[in-house]
Amino acid sequence: MPDQAIEKMSEEQIASGLEKRPQWSEIGGQIQRTYQFEDFVASMEFVRKVAEYAERVQHHPDILIRYNKVTLTVSTHDAGGITAKDFDLAEEADRLAG
Amino acid sequence: MPDQAIEKMSEEQIASGLEKRPQWSEIGGQIQRTYQFEDFVASMEFVRKVAEYAERVQHHPDILIRYNKVTLTVSTHDAGGITAKDFDLAEEADRLAG
Repeated sequence: MPDQAIEKMSEEQIASGLEKRPQWSEIGGQIQRTYQFEDFVASMEFVRKVAEYAERVQHHPDILIRYNKVTLTVSTHDAGGITAKDFDLAEEADRLAG
Repeated sequence: MPDQAIEKMSEEQIASGLEKRPQWSEIGGQIQRTYQFEDFVASMEFVRKVAEYAERVQHHPDILIRYNKVTLTVSTHDAGGITAKDFDLAEEADRLAG
């Protein structure tokens, strides 16, 4: 359902999405989570996996690496807000973080 | 000269260092540059190389990836400011960016 996937979510839909991903929060029309790892190498390994997924689905989060912490920030530019694609990425990133 | 390398630089020394690296600027006690690449894949390739160098010399910049743009921000926590190690990293990153 590509058309549906790119539709901007309502605040209610976002709130419901965040209930399933409690470590993510909405910040300025985007969703964001900071992950903490053992060290820089572990951070980079996670980023490598997220980047691979992002490129495959052509949906790219902003990625901030600060030694053992990685912050992902994501929204859907084409839709001007948060969409199901962002929550798909959040779900996959949570899975990749283990 | 490990002791000298970790010594905080004076404002004069920083200004002189930045003259050699004109695309870097001092921001809040750190030095920073944003690189622009062809696409996300090229950004990630640069980040991979920078991360490899950072891990080798055990000096890690903050790395922000925004699709085809990568921002490096670096200071030396142990010295509480900017040191020669930061300019070494800047030089190497500029080299890696091609």
